[in-house]
Amino acid sequence: MPFYPDPVDGFVIQADALRAWTDALVRRIGTPEDIAADVAEVLLAADLRGIASHGTARLPQYVRLVEAGVMDPAARPLKEIGKPAVARFDANNGWGHHAGRVATDDAIERARETGAAISVLRNTNHYGIAGWYAMRVAREGLIGLSLTNTSPVVAPTRARTSLLGTNPIAFAAPAGRFGMLVLDMATSTVPRGRIEVAERRGETLPAGWAIGPDGSPATAPRLALEGSLLPLGGKEETGGYKGYGLALVVEVLTGILGGAAFGPNIVGLFSTEGPSDLGQLFMAIDPGAIDKPAAFEARLERLLDQLTRAPLIPGAPGPVLYPGQPEAERAEKQARDGIVVDREHHGSLVELGQRYGVPFPAVRPFK
Amino acid sequence: MPFYPDPVDGFVIQADALRAWTDALVRRIGTPEDIAADVAEVLLAADLRGIASHGTARLPQYVRLVEAGVMDPAARPLKEIGKPAVARFDANNGWGHHAGRVATDDAIERARETGAAISVLRNTNHYGIAGWYAMRVAREGLIGLSLTNTSPVVAPTRARTSLLGTNPIAFAAPAGRFGMLVLDMATSTVPRGRIEVAERRGETLPAGWAIGPDGSPATAPRLALEGSLLPLGGKEETGGYKGYGLALVVEVLTGILGGAAFGPNIVGLFSTEGPSDLGQLFMAIDPGAIDKPAAFEARLERLLDQLTRAPLIPGAPGPVLYPGQPEAERAEKQARDGIVVDREHHGSLVELGQRYGVPFPAVRPFK
Repeated sequence: MPFYPDPVDGFVIQADALRAWTDALVRRIGTPEDIAADVAEVLLAADLRGIASHGTARLPQYVRLVEAGVMDPAARPLKEIGKPAVARFDANNGWGHHAGRVATDDAIERARETGAAISVLRNTNHYGIAGWYAMRVAREGLIGLSLTNTSPVVAPTRARTSLLGTNPIAFAAPAGRFGMLVLDMATSTVPRGRIEVAERRGETLPAGWAIGPDGSPATAPRLALEGSLLPLGGKEETGGYKGYGLALVVEVLTGILGGAAFGPNIVGLFSTEGPSDLGQLFMAIDPGAIDKPAAFEARLERLLDQLTRAPLIPGAPGPVLYPGQPEAERAEKQARDGIVVDREHHGSLVELGQRYGVPFPAVRPFK
Repeated sequence: MPFYPDPVDGFVIQADALRAWTDALVRRIGTPEDIAADVAEVLLAADLRGIASHGTARLPQYVRLVEAGVMDPAARPLKEIGKPAVARFDANNGWGHHAGRVATDDAIERARETGAAISVLRNTNHYGIAGWYAMRVAREGLIGLSLTNTSPVVAPTRARTSLLGTNPIAFAAPAGRFGMLVLDMATSTVPRGRIEVAERRGETLPAGWAIGPDGSPATAPRLALEGSLLPLGGKEETGGYKGYGLALVVEVLTGILGGAAFGPNIVGLFSTEGPSDLGQLFMAIDPGAIDKPAAFEARLERLLDQLTRAPLIPGAPGPVLYPGQPEAERAEKQARDGIVVDREHHGSLVELGQRYGVPFPAVRPFK
């Protein structure tokens, strides 16, 4: 399971305090109140679930985009064109989190009428964890899908250069007493952040994670960071073409379908060179359109029951999990006990608060 | 790329002759004319594309199901319930190929009105290559998706037993001068057939393909065949939980959503113990609902152009390919020069033809 260990050294902050500060900081740089609330909600969801790479730790980078005039903090998405089951929105280069929430809600509303509905966004920005939007759909009792393209860091099978993003697939479904099934996965073998961690720790990379600038398998993290990630499955011999295919499917359903930038043409997500013009897709499917209420969730409960009670392989580190289970457990714990942030993350937010006159709240040391 | 080499020894038969014979054989066992035409079309598409495991080589197994009274060759699918963008069909335990074609066409028709539409099938059977249905949508200028659950042969991450199928994902999109992008992939690392091949060749399996009955990694093909396949990504450490997650998503969108059998509860696809009651999903999305005609394909052409011209890794066996490219090239060649079938495949069809008084057509030796 994608496991994000707690930092060994850092601070603990209550979720409400971090949310209120995030909201205030985001408003201070020119974001209207309702938009700031969406941004804070999505960033906090990442921190609560233990996906620190996609939460408030990114705030300094978002702020830099606004300071450079590359992202418009006050922009609102506009529905441009569509039919009942598919609509396209122009995010007008505003916050991805807000545009994504609006597009998702629109898809939910239409799906209640038509049974299923898609929203496609163009001209948008990094929207945090892809899973949040799928989960918003699932909380309404519908099946949710959320896809985004990202800046090119993955080399297609046989290619020496980065031509596609880590293009994540997020899927969520309401699951009765199991809460929610949430798959939120990059279509690369590992995220770039995992290789940065390996570099800090002086680790050697396994084959299949990345290639160096010359296209050879990279075992040194430094070479990998100068080169490209490999798609899920790794090299061609171990099925890497499947991960490449999945990344391409996400690209087709986001940048290509939405008329946004795509593939190698995307400006880095946090680059101040220019707007990213990302493409995103959100889908909602209403199981109630073709079945008795609760029948879908009852069946999914039964399947998850069968999966989680399965006999284990020798040396299994724990029981069979369902996608999203460890993150949901982490979120419940951190909502109660506070969110753990490492020293670097904490320091960057304190600095940001000082710069904008929004003092970062009190924290207590972790462990 | 998923490459299916030609048999080294066998026969060549013209596609038209094989199609006419298949059609006649399928009618002879009680299938109405229009249904038989669908079955022959989908089986031939697999043979033409070089995916012999899903083509006419399966006919003896389908026939056995009909002979045992486990599958109804004359059954027609019935639309049961739905809204404009999602409908459920009962396949009435008939041919999967026909029910799938009908459900796909219904989704295409509704997508032209609403912009996107889904058909879900329950109570259906093995439908051949998942890609055929997605390609049927793409031929109409729409984006197509086709999913099916299958009998349990894959062990979820940490589990010792088979609880999910190889649950394929098929996606197709019209791609201008590139023809069509077609991804058709099992969510397991390799199909079961690949391990059968390894056994015949006396090969040792790489780690990450399969586990034995005790849950330990299987390097001997025999142990793997008695055990379980691993999901795409292999073991937990190499991202196998992503393949497990994808297999589960397919299960949720087919068996669980459709109210069919699911997961470990599915009777073997070709078992005569009872009907398989598979679930399948077909989706069509009309890019023309949110964009000028041809704009989608022009963008996809540009992306595929960028991908296929990419500089290569050292020792690359050829250029960067797009999904479906080798299969399309194979289909074009075999439509012209005839389909290559191996001796075992040929012998089983000759025998079937003799038994039902539908003599198998003349072939010529291969090589």
